[in-house]
Amino acid sequence: MDIEDTLLMIPCQVKVAPRVLRAMSRPMISHRSGEFGAIYNDCRGLLKEFFETKNEVVVMTGSGTVGMDAAVGSIIGREDKIVTISNGKFGERFTEIGERYGRAIPVKFEWGTPFDLDKVKAALDEGAKAVAMVHNETSVGLTNPAKEVGRLARKHDAIFIVDGISSIGGNEFLTDTWEIDIAITGSQKALAVPPGLAMVSVSPRAEDRFQAKSASYYADLKAHLKSVRKSPAQTPYTPAVPLFYALQEALHMAAEEGFAARRARTAKQAEAVRSAAKALDIELFPQVNEQSHYSNTVTAMKMPKGVTDDKLRGGMKKQGVIVSGGQEQLKGKIFRIGTMGVCSTPDILRTIQTLELVLAKEGRLKDRGAGVEAAGKVLGV
Amino acid sequence: MDIEDTLLMIPCQVKVAPRVLRAMSRPMISHRSGEFGAIYNDCRGLLKEFFETKNEVVVMTGSGTVGMDAAVGSIIGREDKIVTISNGKFGERFTEIGERYGRAIPVKFEWGTPFDLDKVKAALDEGAKAVAMVHNETSVGLTNPAKEVGRLARKHDAIFIVDGISSIGGNEFLTDTWEIDIAITGSQKALAVPPGLAMVSVSPRAEDRFQAKSASYYADLKAHLKSVRKSPAQTPYTPAVPLFYALQEALHMAAEEGFAARRARTAKQAEAVRSAAKALDIELFPQVNEQSHYSNTVTAMKMPKGVTDDKLRGGMKKQGVIVSGGQEQLKGKIFRIGTMGVCSTPDILRTIQTLELVLAKEGRLKDRGAGVEAAGKVLGV
Repeated sequence: MDIEDTLLMIPCQVKVAPRVLRAMSRPMISHRSGEFGAIYNDCRGLLKEFFETKNEVVVMTGSGTVGMDAAVGSIIGREDKIVTISNGKFGERFTEIGERYGRAIPVKFEWGTPFDLDKVKAALDEGAKAVAMVHNETSVGLTNPAKEVGRLARKHDAIFIVDGISSIGGNEFLTDTWEIDIAITGSQKALAVPPGLAMVSVSPRAEDRFQAKSASYYADLKAHLKSVRKSPAQTPYTPAVPLFYALQEALHMAAEEGFAARRARTAKQAEAVRSAAKALDIELFPQVNEQSHYSNTVTAMKMPKGVTDDKLRGGMKKQGVIVSGGQEQLKGKIFRIGTMGVCSTPDILRTIQTLELVLAKEGRLKDRGAGVEAAGKVLGV
Repeated sequence: MDIEDTLLMIPCQVKVAPRVLRAMSRPMISHRSGEFGAIYNDCRGLLKEFFETKNEVVVMTGSGTVGMDAAVGSIIGREDKIVTISNGKFGERFTEIGERYGRAIPVKFEWGTPFDLDKVKAALDEGAKAVAMVHNETSVGLTNPAKEVGRLARKHDAIFIVDGISSIGGNEFLTDTWEIDIAITGSQKALAVPPGLAMVSVSPRAEDRFQAKSASYYADLKAHLKSVRKSPAQTPYTPAVPLFYALQEALHMAAEEGFAARRARTAKQAEAVRSAAKALDIELFPQVNEQSHYSNTVTAMKMPKGVTDDKLRGGMKKQGVIVSGGQEQLKGKIFRIGTMGVCSTPDILRTIQTLELVLAKEGRLKDRGAGVEAAGKVLGV
């Protein structure tokens, strides 16, 4: 299968629009120049709208993890405690980072099950400088209750850190209303930029409680804030300039569609995938409740009985549609479809139709076309 | 001045060939796929030749600094000592990183003056787990004696860390012969890739002496080594995929020219710049001796008397040629011309001719055309 004919429907990295890909081919400029500063500031202005925040936003070169690393390491020192809530792979990463730099108090739930807020409260009662959580747990397709945890954090005077990497721009994410002190996203998700940039918003309250020196040298929010306040705006270390070109183009593209309109479209697309799953007798993986919802950006489904991961994802790949499997203990047990960024109605229909094709081959398709019809109905086709 | 008509002659970021820029416009792929693993392994194979090493080479998403951070943080813990030698801005960065994670023993020389190896030896006599130095100090245009420091490091059983960011591929750099345990380079230098990737080679000896857990979570060499040994080869966190496309293209381009041929061409080009400076009565900035040489990749020159930085660099920029100024205490006192990567003879001649033009405007040009003639002579024009 040629790469140009392949449709990426994974939640790790969404497809990127040709105009964004082309933006990277512009010649390089000095990252200390006014030209770069203007691009950076244009991005930062639009990112504030994207994050729904008045806080400062900085852009770091690295994966989303560098943003998580910077958030924890800028706040937490050897003697500081941080409550880290997890119900999937990325929540557990916060525990690992917390343990690396200070003392993590993990509040761990089974992958794909909702938070028990009483347990979060109990952990915060022990006294912690910060609490960190993942809003949209990519590994299980579940959206966690940031608003509710934010309220607890404020009551306990803890800095509130939220990984919004696969969330912001796809799910509702209200940085200021939910009083999120440090929010993080990655370029390769709802903005549909190639990977390599982490965007981080920082409240004045977080800045007041920064460590004198961040735990990590490279992932240092203080250094980034100092640099964006220079004229021209810049980054402390050399940035990935082509990715900034792409980010600027993608932010303009998202703003043209409208950030709210893109969120609404994304919600509709995930609903379409869930409808198709139902029509095809495929069970959704995560458990949900009033505060924890099916994700708009990634739908995790149980592997249909009698179908192997290799047959399902391998079979779809042969037709040029790439979907994700489960991670770690969920390997072979679930598969995941991402619906972020510039994903279109034809993309969704092609994906479901390909899924049906594989199910048919495995003798698991009862009602031919039912998935495509269900998805199409939600999408107004 | 249009960006497409601008010639980047700065040592921070060299110009990038159109075929490398275009490589970034390919659609995204999953970074956990065999396709990505094949690209990564192709790059790693060529990078071993580039580094002249049999050691493992990993590629990290971030600036060169993330590589320096990873090198120090993987080896040095709170109680460990590291000798950090500096005679410019980037050497001082090693001291900062060393202080962040452990105990730095700085051996500091004036910017632009050669190392005194007796002082390095005296510091190592105190007992240190590692010694770190910059091979090519970009801030002052001086190449430092890595071979000699390497010998001292081995005698003292210290891990030898060398920043080869603006050096490897431009200067002679013999990772294995000089017994460099951890060598670092950046994508935006002699390889002429856009910025955003750090390449790091790690000896088995360094790996044996890694800390149980690296000081930094994101900049963690152990995690990178673990990931490249998986099948398919991968990175621990999401990599900047388009920059890997560019790296692969640029490595093939450099291999077509020949790594040794590129180094020889780069040496010639720096010699041409120095000849032009002499012909134009412009003094070179760094002091050199038998072990410390004028850099092949960046030539630092004193600002001609009576000419301001603004007139010189601003005047050249008006003609579309971008050169660098001095950093920190050298601001306004020196200017720097980079000659790395895919820089051509016409690029050098255009730069010198533009410099002459500015000098003429400032009434500082005695012998019109002397600079261009001198450079042309070296370049065989």
